[in-house]
Amino acid sequence: MIGSAVPIPRHWYNAAADLPELYGPYIDPATGRELTADSLTELFAPELVEQELDRSTRLRPIPDEVMERYALWRPTPLIRATGLERALGTKCKIFYKYEGVSPIGSHKANSGVAQAHYSKRAGRTKVYAETGAGQWGSAISMGSSFVGLDAEVFMVGGSYDAKPSRRILMETFGSTVHRSPSPHTAVGRAARAADENAQGSLGLAIGEAVEAARADPAAAYALGSAFNFVCLHQTVIGQELRAQLDSVGLKPDALISCIGGGSSFAGLVFPFLDQLDRKGAPLDLVAVESNAVPKVTQGKFTFDHGDSAKLTPLVEMYTLGHEFAAPGIHSGGLRYHGLSGQVSKALNLGMGRAVAYSQLEIFKAASLFARTEGLIPAPEAAHSVAATIEIARQHRDEEKVLVFCLTGHGFFDLSAYQRYNLGQMEDSDSPSEAIARSLGELPKVPHRGAPAPAGADPFDAWERWHFGNRATPDRPVGGGGATDLREYRVVSERLVREACRNASGDLFVAANAVITPAAESEARDRGRAIVRDIAR
Amino acid sequence: MIGSAVPIPRHWYNAAADLPELYGPYIDPATGRELTADSLTELFAPELVEQELDRSTRLRPIPDEVMERYALWRPTPLIRATGLERALGTKCKIFYKYEGVSPIGSHKANSGVAQAHYSKRAGRTKVYAETGAGQWGSAISMGSSFVGLDAEVFMVGGSYDAKPSRRILMETFGSTVHRSPSPHTAVGRAARAADENAQGSLGLAIGEAVEAARADPAAAYALGSAFNFVCLHQTVIGQELRAQLDSVGLKPDALISCIGGGSSFAGLVFPFLDQLDRKGAPLDLVAVESNAVPKVTQGKFTFDHGDSAKLTPLVEMYTLGHEFAAPGIHSGGLRYHGLSGQVSKALNLGMGRAVAYSQLEIFKAASLFARTEGLIPAPEAAHSVAATIEIARQHRDEEKVLVFCLTGHGFFDLSAYQRYNLGQMEDSDSPSEAIARSLGELPKVPHRGAPAPAGADPFDAWERWHFGNRATPDRPVGGGGATDLREYRVVSERLVREACRNASGDLFVAANAVITPAAESEARDRGRAIVRDIAR
Repeated sequence: MIGSAVPIPRHWYNAAADLPELYGPYIDPATGRELTADSLTELFAPELVEQELDRSTRLRPIPDEVMERYALWRPTPLIRATGLERALGTKCKIFYKYEGVSPIGSHKANSGVAQAHYSKRAGRTKVYAETGAGQWGSAISMGSSFVGLDAEVFMVGGSYDAKPSRRILMETFGSTVHRSPSPHTAVGRAARAADENAQGSLGLAIGEAVEAARADPAAAYALGSAFNFVCLHQTVIGQELRAQLDSVGLKPDALISCIGGGSSFAGLVFPFLDQLDRKGAPLDLVAVESNAVPKVTQGKFTFDHGDSAKLTPLVEMYTLGHEFAAPGIHSGGLRYHGLSGQVSKALNLGMGRAVAYSQLEIFKAASLFARTEGLIPAPEAAHSVAATIEIARQHRDEEKVLVFCLTGHGFFDLSAYQRYNLGQMEDSDSPSEAIARSLGELPKVPHRGAPAPAGADPFDAWERWHFGNRATPDRPVGGGGATDLREYRVVSERLVREACRNASGDLFVAANAVITPAAESEARDRGRAIVRDIAR
Repeated sequence: MIGSAVPIPRHWYNAAADLPELYGPYIDPATGRELTADSLTELFAPELVEQELDRSTRLRPIPDEVMERYALWRPTPLIRATGLERALGTKCKIFYKYEGVSPIGSHKANSGVAQAHYSKRAGRTKVYAETGAGQWGSAISMGSSFVGLDAEVFMVGGSYDAKPSRRILMETFGSTVHRSPSPHTAVGRAARAADENAQGSLGLAIGEAVEAARADPAAAYALGSAFNFVCLHQTVIGQELRAQLDSVGLKPDALISCIGGGSSFAGLVFPFLDQLDRKGAPLDLVAVESNAVPKVTQGKFTFDHGDSAKLTPLVEMYTLGHEFAAPGIHSGGLRYHGLSGQVSKALNLGMGRAVAYSQLEIFKAASLFARTEGLIPAPEAAHSVAATIEIARQHRDEEKVLVFCLTGHGFFDLSAYQRYNLGQMEDSDSPSEAIARSLGELPKVPHRGAPAPAGADPFDAWERWHFGNRATPDRPVGGGGATDLREYRVVSERLVREACRNASGDLFVAANAVITPAAESEARDRGRAIVRDIAR
């Protein structure tokens, strides 16, 4: 875009370098051990694997070829919602960072062009991808079209049927689109055997795409959220936002985005992590989910598979269980059972909070937004609108700066709006029974430290988990993998408490622990005090 | 939008003040005389009428309330199409000014918020509008929603059936949408009596909206193109473009936009009129039409009605005849039989040129554009893509700066793309017979000068047309109307030639002629020389 005062960021920001605690490692479902880079390279270009595992490099330069593509829609506009403010009668300043101006209409384009670029450069000739609502499929199709890669997309059956436009969009980029479950993979065939007209799920479509990519050495797998490198690519959003707010002398009081896999939330908030400690002006990071898929507000923070076929690594995250079948809400992008490890960790550390809204609540908010701001939000983004409206009402008399990410437009979701307009939309509810059932099916994660003997001092258990399992040159953690241990900047009380509970075998704690002597000594002292306190 | 280096223009630019010759006056179809401001005020807010008739004020301030709304999507991005350039192997620099970022996805929003604002300020409580492809209906619905006006939209039947999403979008803003021809107006009932399932036309829908607005004193009529004030509102496009190109030190060699009613073309090119005379670097203004609706390349420049019901004034313009039934192409926005009087005049004066493309040609171009730039153009805008590609290929080895207006996205047109992708799209052709038939039905426009006697000196006829008919305080032109005669800056050779032909009664020449003594004297001299030269 010509003539912007705010430049497109030249780097992606890797939040792993600044998170006060690291998220858990990926566990290979086949071996029960930490996943190796080699194993990831089967599916992804080496640069993406490096990005995925890198827990220390803060800034990573964006390749020129990707910068050229970003210039097609970046910087995205930051817009003040004065019409909405008046309608709410609030003194809050409400802004939205509008990612729907990307050619395919959502923030997914930010990672689509990057993944296609790296896959091509790695010599892959094809990419396989899943898509739920169709946003990610469109993004990787566009990216593939730009660099001359073939793309095959497994689209969740329910969306495939309901959103022909999204499918045609992908086909216009030259992609092949399959309804998932499809007859092209063992995963798909098994699902079809159980129910030929199955509506599918994102977890299932991921399984199909991974299986297809594994079977083809010339192919890469491309995924639209959850992974660290996807969150990384999305950080252009928050970096631009900082510069845009700076240009008008403002700082945000709240940053709000919806969570499906978590990449838009990561992209929006991670570049503001250093502002969490602002004295006297706490920054409120708000992750918004559907009450029908309440992975944070009602799920568990533990290790789980990213797909229902259990082909993907175990990730430490908030999850409703990989077998969770999300209700058929009009927000396909939020139906995923899990959440990015990075985002999960940040929320689990209390750096942000999660809130959940029902379908009618979010369409009511979206309808008000449309009438006052003109834009029709995608139902996923409407969750952020609902949360923003609630905060703006709560702080009616304060001049707080609220910014939400309007991740995409709702031009492909108008049949849902029609149902709402006509009063024919059903509200969504929390599927408590299904959640309980699928949480019961969570995988058993192998303990990697020695089990604590019964009746042991709780701190001994804590210490064993955190230090006994530390990698050394002659004793790598995770069965020989190249675990990259880094210094934790803080060892939180929360981690210690978890470690204690873990002594009874309930919880798994990541092995990547304190490493510098000073930090280790401080952590041991703090940990000992806390653990003894708890035990008393 | 926060953080743009290029400001949103604070004024609209009135090209009438700079056109070398004025377009003809509006003729009241009821009286055959020049339309009065009073008569227009029945339908439009007084400010809009003033804008419509003003032929001298160059810059008109944009009201603050409209500026606030423009800030929701303006300035729109100017994007360099490097991917397309590479695919074409051209040295030309191709840029597109992307108006599809407006909340409703097209440039129509620029006039929608303005018309709603003025209508509300004039005390109207409701607006009636027509819409073809749905772009204008969406724009006026959004504008009405912003200011709290009721809106009723008559949507061309064919589009109503094919594009439910556009209808739902309007309804989400709170509008009522009727399939046209509808049972709610006499015009609609007559059409339905002839054919209950009639596909309708823009001319018919206009007739319905005008009839409904006339019947309701509290209502205004809002129209999406062709009128001068609509062209005026769109000039924010070209003004921003100038600033954006200036910011990178470039001047355009060609400006390209499609023509339905002509407002996007006007908005893009009018702010560059002063560059037409650039020494050694002529500026190429290219208006792109469908070969199925070739109003400029195969129509007539004369007075015609804007609607098939003949309720609207006669406008001097390029037309295929108000009874022309356009073939059912996938570019609803270009199916209008006429063209803005201002744009028609500019083209007729040779300030720009028109080119026509067939449906398959424009979808081929759009498909290449999608794969190289990611954006799916609306079929209307795809005409500009096709023309730009042709120019870029013709000037492959020259570093020309080509800019086209990408008036809107094609997210609501994907079923047409599917047809193209599957090879099932029929090409369009010029409906020569229908054109001949409807041009035969053009209205007889009353000559307002004395008819030339047979065998008279051609200059006498010219002089009588241009000066004999000039208004004076005691002898107003047009039967007592308040004709606002202004100085022509140039009397072109073309006008003189037309006047000569007019001596035989074939052509009507506008009565608004040279008025200052110096200009009159120069015009007489130039005219005499030219006319004598022709007669020799």
